[in-house]
Amino acid sequence: MLNSVFVLVPITSVLALSFAYYFYKQMTKSSEGTETMQRIAQHVRKGASAYLKQQYKVVLIVFLCITAIFSYMAYGLGVQNNWVPFAFLTGGCFSALAGFFGMKAATTASARVANACRDSLNSGLRLAFRSGAVMGLVVVGLVLADISIWFTVLNHFIEDMEGGYKLMTICAIMVTFGMGASTQALFARVGGGIYTKAADVGADLVGKVEANIPEDDPRNPATIADNVGDNVGDVAGMGADLFESFAASILASALLGAAAYFDMGDVQLGAVLAPMIIAAIGTLLSIVGIFLVRTREGASQKELLRSLNIGVYFSAALIVVLSYFALKFLNLPNFVGIWGSIIAGLAAGIGIGQSTEYYTSASYKPTISIAKSSETGPATVIIAGVGTGLLSTAIPLLIVTVAIILSYCFATGFQFGADTINMGLYGIGIAAVGMLSTLGITLATDAYGPIADNAGGNAEMSNLGPEVRKRTDALDSLGNTTAATGKGFAIGSAALTALALLTSYFEEVRMMFVKVLDAPDTLINNVPAGEATFYDFVQHYEIHLMNPLVICGMFIGVMAVFMFSGMTMNAVGRAAQKMVDEVRRQFRTIAGIMEGTAEPDYARCVEISTKGAQREMMKPALMALAIPVVVGLVLGVPGISGLLIGTITSGFALAIFMANSGGAWDNAKKYIEEGNFGGKGSEAHKATVIGDTVGDPFKDTSGPSLNILIKLMVMASVVTVGLAVTYHIL
Amino acid sequence: MLNSVFVLVPITSVLALSFAYYFYKQMTKSSEGTETMQRIAQHVRKGASAYLKQQYKVVLIVFLCITAIFSYMAYGLGVQNNWVPFAFLTGGCFSALAGFFGMKAATTASARVANACRDSLNSGLRLAFRSGAVMGLVVVGLVLADISIWFTVLNHFIEDMEGGYKLMTICAIMVTFGMGASTQALFARVGGGIYTKAADVGADLVGKVEANIPEDDPRNPATIADNVGDNVGDVAGMGADLFESFAASILASALLGAAAYFDMGDVQLGAVLAPMIIAAIGTLLSIVGIFLVRTREGASQKELLRSLNIGVYFSAALIVVLSYFALKFLNLPNFVGIWGSIIAGLAAGIGIGQSTEYYTSASYKPTISIAKSSETGPATVIIAGVGTGLLSTAIPLLIVTVAIILSYCFATGFQFGADTINMGLYGIGIAAVGMLSTLGITLATDAYGPIADNAGGNAEMSNLGPEVRKRTDALDSLGNTTAATGKGFAIGSAALTALALLTSYFEEVRMMFVKVLDAPDTLINNVPAGEATFYDFVQHYEIHLMNPLVICGMFIGVMAVFMFSGMTMNAVGRAAQKMVDEVRRQFRTIAGIMEGTAEPDYARCVEISTKGAQREMMKPALMALAIPVVVGLVLGVPGISGLLIGTITSGFALAIFMANSGGAWDNAKKYIEEGNFGGKGSEAHKATVIGDTVGDPFKDTSGPSLNILIKLMVMASVVTVGLAVTYHIL
Repeated sequence: MLNSVFVLVPITSVLALSFAYYFYKQMTKSSEGTETMQRIAQHVRKGASAYLKQQYKVVLIVFLCITAIFSYMAYGLGVQNNWVPFAFLTGGCFSALAGFFGMKAATTASARVANACRDSLNSGLRLAFRSGAVMGLVVVGLVLADISIWFTVLNHFIEDMEGGYKLMTICAIMVTFGMGASTQALFARVGGGIYTKAADVGADLVGKVEANIPEDDPRNPATIADNVGDNVGDVAGMGADLFESFAASILASALLGAAAYFDMGDVQLGAVLAPMIIAAIGTLLSIVGIFLVRTREGASQKELLRSLNIGVYFSAALIVVLSYFALKFLNLPNFVGIWGSIIAGLAAGIGIGQSTEYYTSASYKPTISIAKSSETGPATVIIAGVGTGLLSTAIPLLIVTVAIILSYCFATGFQFGADTINMGLYGIGIAAVGMLSTLGITLATDAYGPIADNAGGNAEMSNLGPEVRKRTDALDSLGNTTAATGKGFAIGSAALTALALLTSYFEEVRMMFVKVLDAPDTLINNVPAGEATFYDFVQHYEIHLMNPLVICGMFIGVMAVFMFSGMTMNAVGRAAQKMVDEVRRQFRTIAGIMEGTAEPDYARCVEISTKGAQREMMKPALMALAIPVVVGLVLGVPGISGLLIGTITSGFALAIFMANSGGAWDNAKKYIEEGNFGGKGSEAHKATVIGDTVGDPFKDTSGPSLNILIKLMVMASVVTVGLAVTYHIL
Repeated sequence: MLNSVFVLVPITSVLALSFAYYFYKQMTKSSEGTETMQRIAQHVRKGASAYLKQQYKVVLIVFLCITAIFSYMAYGLGVQNNWVPFAFLTGGCFSALAGFFGMKAATTASARVANACRDSLNSGLRLAFRSGAVMGLVVVGLVLADISIWFTVLNHFIEDMEGGYKLMTICAIMVTFGMGASTQALFARVGGGIYTKAADVGADLVGKVEANIPEDDPRNPATIADNVGDNVGDVAGMGADLFESFAASILASALLGAAAYFDMGDVQLGAVLAPMIIAAIGTLLSIVGIFLVRTREGASQKELLRSLNIGVYFSAALIVVLSYFALKFLNLPNFVGIWGSIIAGLAAGIGIGQSTEYYTSASYKPTISIAKSSETGPATVIIAGVGTGLLSTAIPLLIVTVAIILSYCFATGFQFGADTINMGLYGIGIAAVGMLSTLGITLATDAYGPIADNAGGNAEMSNLGPEVRKRTDALDSLGNTTAATGKGFAIGSAALTALALLTSYFEEVRMMFVKVLDAPDTLINNVPAGEATFYDFVQHYEIHLMNPLVICGMFIGVMAVFMFSGMTMNAVGRAAQKMVDEVRRQFRTIAGIMEGTAEPDYARCVEISTKGAQREMMKPALMALAIPVVVGLVLGVPGISGLLIGTITSGFALAIFMANSGGAWDNAKKYIEEGNFGGKGSEAHKATVIGDTVGDPFKDTSGPSLNILIKLMVMASVVTVGLAVTYHIL
């Protein structure tokens, strides 16, 4: 009977994809407005698809290489399951597909949203939001589709196993398709992040600072690239990031569930299905929630935000109720505790979002202080922003800490120790699933941001009337708020997902040990390897804090985080430099550009950003892929364990710091533009423009890229676990 | 016989202090120059002692409170050794004394160095360096004195113990006087760091940027406060920091030695004495090295640097040779391996210094790139500096990782596991001792920096001729180089010391467990507690990476690091703001100040910095002291373990990032001032001035303060171990 519940997952998947298609079709039916509007949208669409094409080429090569390596590991060395190369590929393909559809929807929507704003604020909001929902639903729909297919296929083909082993093996294989999603996300986030900020910083440095023309001015040659960048970074990048978190949290939890309730028959199956079912229910609720979003004409920012929040909170509230019954139905012995873990995860997600808003919104003290510090020049703006960003890590880190403890304790009934640890770790995984369960609608609010932003850009460049501009500005401003909280949410869920993956790493170690070394009688922590639990392996490998290999791994993990951020930061600097040179060149050589009589060469700027992003993303990407493998080969399983926890903890903090500093600088600038501390054009305003420019790579490149690094390092360790177990040097 | 070797320690202590006195006396004999020079020096001296007095008042109160708490823990609750309150007090007093003498020497020297530069470059260099050596020798001399006294006293009083227990107990008590040094260092580094940068940033923002007058211009009211700050931060702060590292590395190693060679009679004694003897030999070599420093007239920067390095490298080379014989004499069974650990530590210290130089000196690519990025304005300067700083963490972290592995492996003969772990951890401790062994002379080169800087300031303000200015500039520039490498060295040694302390934490857990719970028969990892090793306790407390308490501790450790940095960063911002207001006020209200006909109110600025530093340092200081206690009470020993390793790894990385970003910005500015990319007064120069101002709190406040945090958190955990063992909630 339990098995038949699983059918909810593919059904939900089909529903989500169908609604995505429905929203997309509805959107394409609305008019794209004047000829100028269409032309501009066309520019952006062309730029975006040129970029995607180029990126997918690179990704294809990388995927072929990695698949070859995995195949050799599986079929040549025998240190990996034979299904892994295929699982890896589908994860990557599905994520790429989601990115493609999301981008398509977003770039098709922007001019239409601008046009809808000529009618009313409500039309604009709904069109923008539902276009964002395309991305949200495609992402969750494709994740659920991938899970449905593989769970069915593996159930069918893996037959020669007894008891709990079958489900364990299926889950262990499925986790690795997260590696495909992770690799795809790496390129999407890092490449997209570099692209968008090279264009943005380049456009601002010459346009705003030197030529003194406003943002989104059609005379600025980099302005189309800047608009493309919003889609590339915040739609495709963010989508790929959360695609992975959603998939990995579900699959890691399934694996942890299979281990925690091993040999308990239907209960084990229930534990494996629980994360999938909860994700499916959350997706259904997201669809309903999307329909609830609407507003009235002349709504204030607060009202607009409430409109979005109604949908989000509706889904969150109902998932709390429905998951109780779902868990009860799945018949887990400690289902009330597990339910508590879900709530802990959900609450943590909301809490982190709130804290992000507090630290980055100009309605609160921190951002106002940064704005005030502009009175003594740009240096104090930077110092205040860095100080605030560093401080802002405290609450999210505390929230995650509390969520970990609570979700563990709820699941174990506040017991610690070897007997209950499996259950507790399952609780942590389930908390991550809880946090992400309503991703369909949260991601819709995220993807809404760049659509509204681009609609504003389109309206500006097409010289639509001030009434329309006011409406698009209102939508854009709302998008900034959701973007900030969305970033906090993405980081928080990345950290929790990575933790769940890390705990499942040891399950993989155990299975690989038994399979590869084929020594079921070797004593592991005084127990034959064949009967040893993952906990015995933790003891056996001395994954404790006095093991120098663990300590060294941790130092390297922290190193990876800082180095990766430095690389992406410098990448933006270099790429932006090229953009500045090009924009200056165009201003110098194209006559009539400043008078608006000649059109700048937008395509050239798009090309520069695209090429710059491609070139610059290779080094950090390769580093992120190589480090776990090298550490595994040199320091073995203890080194990897230290590496991963070091990366997760410090990466989480650094990501929050960067995202919040950047967000706060951005809003401090906007606060001054609203007329405070001298308003637009004052020295104080110039100082905050500098802060905002510094913040761009902080919040949109280096910060979000860390989400990927955190998860990718764990994933790469999971899929190469056979190497670390078999060939390590120390 | 072995016991008689110990006499080398007090003898060296007396020698070091005598030479410090000798250098001081020699220095006071030289002339302080013209009346103006004396007057300015008088201002700085008065400001410095006003600050110290104020700081020591606060520290006294804190010390009394903490002593009261420790006394209650020892005599009331019985969860701490009765000697600890006293050990705590002497550690604090001796560190404070060292700071006092160092400051006195530095502030007495500056005018004299300026005056000596009227004679020749060599006179200037020697006088400045030997005045710096006063600080170096006082620090190591007082550490060795404190060790001599306590080792003798405890040997005398602790008699009722058998076998290895006596030495274990003595060492465990002695480690806690590091807590006194740590607390004193906290206030010296954090308070000093805020003081110096509030003055510096305040002086620069109004002086350089608004009023367009050069640095050290006597018309700037904040200039005396700025000069005082150099002494307060870089002499007293740095000295207290390294006082603690030197003491803690020796004592933690002694404790680890006592545990590793437990019950081996004279061998155990040898292991305990080894770190002390090596420190003593290093100190003797430092004294000789100090005498080797001299230069010729018209020496280039390279030659000047070589002059200093001759002394440093001489001491380092000889310590390698002599420590071999010392260890052989002490009769440790694996003395060649231990010797290898010493070399690993020494090499790591030098390597970190070199890497710091590469990333912060304008002779290399990174800093030149930052300077070049100024062509596109301040925003790209900040982005490039942050990117470079983040990247620059890679090499030091790798070096520390390799040093940990090597020093562990050398000491154990490349064995891992329960049997040899004690030996390996001793190796890590000894590596820290090796790195710090020649501290006498390395600290002399550090303290030399602010003396030369102040001499330059004095020469500028006294209008000495261009020939003299050229000489003081040369000395100052050399000081900048040594300051940068000195910072890297201080951070690296802090990390290694903290690691040694962390490993000794578990020894303390073991002893506390047996003593406090008085249950020697309780089974710990299947062994009666009375016979259990610290390793059994690691297993018993589940200090492994799957324990949620450990993971939570790690998140909180990372949080503490980021929060602490944010607090100190914002503290500088706020205090600098006050200084800016005051300087602006003086420019506005004191007639004739800009014409040089009226003297500004220097004292008022000194007072503002002093008060600002006092007020601002309280919150971060209390947080640093409270977190380990609270985490211990809530999460117990596993939580503390995670907390400490999280703090050490991420704190190390963040400290390096901040120090190197700051150093690179500073030198990028100087590089442009030398005439590159437009030179002084150009837009590029203005952009780098902003970078430099941002870098000030990075490199001189938040970065160095992290050294303290890293060590203090471990120390605080060590001294409150009784609470965590007995009263923890989870």
